[in-house]
Amino acid sequence: MNTVSEAAKPSVTAPSALAHGVWSPAVTPLQADLSVDRQRYVDHVSWLLRHGCHGVTVFGTTGEAPSFSVDERIEALDWLIEAGVEPDRLIIGTGCCARADTVRLTVHALASGCHHVLMLPPFYFKKVSNVGLADSYRDVIERVGDLTLRIYLYHFPQLSAIPINDDLIDVLLSDYPQTIAGMKDSSGDQANTTRWLQRYPQLAVFSGSEAFLLGGLRRGGAGCITATANINPHGIRSVYDAWQRDDADCDGRQHSANAVRTILEKYPLAPGLKHVIAHSREDSDWKRVRPPMIALTADDGTALLQSLESIGFSM
Amino acid sequence: MNTVSEAAKPSVTAPSALAHGVWSPAVTPLQADLSVDRQRYVDHVSWLLRHGCHGVTVFGTTGEAPSFSVDERIEALDWLIEAGVEPDRLIIGTGCCARADTVRLTVHALASGCHHVLMLPPFYFKKVSNVGLADSYRDVIERVGDLTLRIYLYHFPQLSAIPINDDLIDVLLSDYPQTIAGMKDSSGDQANTTRWLQRYPQLAVFSGSEAFLLGGLRRGGAGCITATANINPHGIRSVYDAWQRDDADCDGRQHSANAVRTILEKYPLAPGLKHVIAHSREDSDWKRVRPPMIALTADDGTALLQSLESIGFSM
Repeated sequence: MNTVSEAAKPSVTAPSALAHGVWSPAVTPLQADLSVDRQRYVDHVSWLLRHGCHGVTVFGTTGEAPSFSVDERIEALDWLIEAGVEPDRLIIGTGCCARADTVRLTVHALASGCHHVLMLPPFYFKKVSNVGLADSYRDVIERVGDLTLRIYLYHFPQLSAIPINDDLIDVLLSDYPQTIAGMKDSSGDQANTTRWLQRYPQLAVFSGSEAFLLGGLRRGGAGCITATANINPHGIRSVYDAWQRDDADCDGRQHSANAVRTILEKYPLAPGLKHVIAHSREDSDWKRVRPPMIALTADDGTALLQSLESIGFSM
Repeated sequence: MNTVSEAAKPSVTAPSALAHGVWSPAVTPLQADLSVDRQRYVDHVSWLLRHGCHGVTVFGTTGEAPSFSVDERIEALDWLIEAGVEPDRLIIGTGCCARADTVRLTVHALASGCHHVLMLPPFYFKKVSNVGLADSYRDVIERVGDLTLRIYLYHFPQLSAIPINDDLIDVLLSDYPQTIAGMKDSSGDQANTTRWLQRYPQLAVFSGSEAFLLGGLRRGGAGCITATANINPHGIRSVYDAWQRDDADCDGRQHSANAVRTILEKYPLAPGLKHVIAHSREDSDWKRVRPPMIALTADDGTALLQSLESIGFSM
């Protein structure tokens, strides 16, 4: 049963199949006044798509999404589409605290040809019930009213403090079996990802880290949506390709990708990634982040670059 | 030193003295489509101001603020002002995750004649540094650029998960001694409130609960901004008045107010308060809340009303 009302306005285009593979939640480059840097943003997303990413998530956590207004997020997506980025290679982060904001972002994504959205639950109120969370998602789905919408539920308890649990998934799947497309599990709990892969074989379950890319793929996972792909898209893609070819060096490639990840994880992710990009592109403007994030200190930045160099990594 | 740039546009009106007394963060009545119910909102805020509240906080946590878009929040404040509510009797909740949203709400508050704002820190990213949080507040203050702005820092670690600590207050006070007006301490930790009262005698420190109204006033506190004042404004105000008159029954009145609070705290606050208001006004529409909140179950609602009746409380 899909209860989206009959007033539903199907988009012109149909959604692609469920997303899969290696996805990068793009970091968001900033100008001196901390507005989004259009050219660098288009260039970076295009670079990611040319260098191994199956797709890019626009305004996920790594893109500092909640630090940007709905208008800013809409404008930035428009820039990508105008630059010729294929909508099917984008997943749009749209989950906000206020339903009107989530609805606006989701409607705009669909109008842009992007059917796949990554949706945080409303994250201010804590210890809310599954009934209330299901109502939140239901409210958005009904107001958007588009049968081509595909939602990936965003499980990131460390930041949202609102876990996506099985009961919530079950009730949403029961009401909207077409619309609920999958989950992104950013909990870092591989046991949870594994459990979801067994329990929801019909869904696209992404790991929030490449550390579980191979392990997830071997269990039927969709792939990963991982911050580190901003600097190591080729290395992470090579794990996916080796797995697809059933190459003997799958595990070796996974091991190499993990080494990069392990170093990055010692630093705040968005500032750390931006520091590496700034270094690689010899463009210090790339270091800018929006408060409450702060750029890496010079010492931390040097240590990060040296650690990456010590394992022979370069972007 | 107040570093607000010279481009600062002072408002037409000057800010009143620091806020003090008994303030109610108004609950937000909703229509069937969960939009804000204009008439009930104006009526409720007016009722609170006539029945003991020194002032009303517009879109605090109890008002389910983060569940409403910036446009909805702006419109609702406009309704209050158009209805003749005195701007000086309002504190406007303006803290959002995205600085553009916080700035828009704050600029609109000032343009409405409301100089006092209650400002949450950006609350999605966790474990952020004081430097980043100070940058967030600084960024908003500079962009608003109005020397008549008065900010109450909102400390509610249970929901925001971003505590306001002394180092943050100190750095903001040092940069903006006029603009930083006080804090609302919703932690429930009376020792923290007491410590702030000693450390910051120049600031208006509000308790987030009437449970510490008398205790706070006796130590130089500004009063309380408390959810329960939505249903018990007269009872809580009577504590304040008795303290001001130095009446012998101060503590008895505090005890009576606490009894109401203790009962309410067993339920989610906004749904519980709305349930009591719906009962008192014989208007079941008042029970509506926005997801992820849910209305009280019939059983919980009955139990709540019976508990209040058992102590002889009525609105």
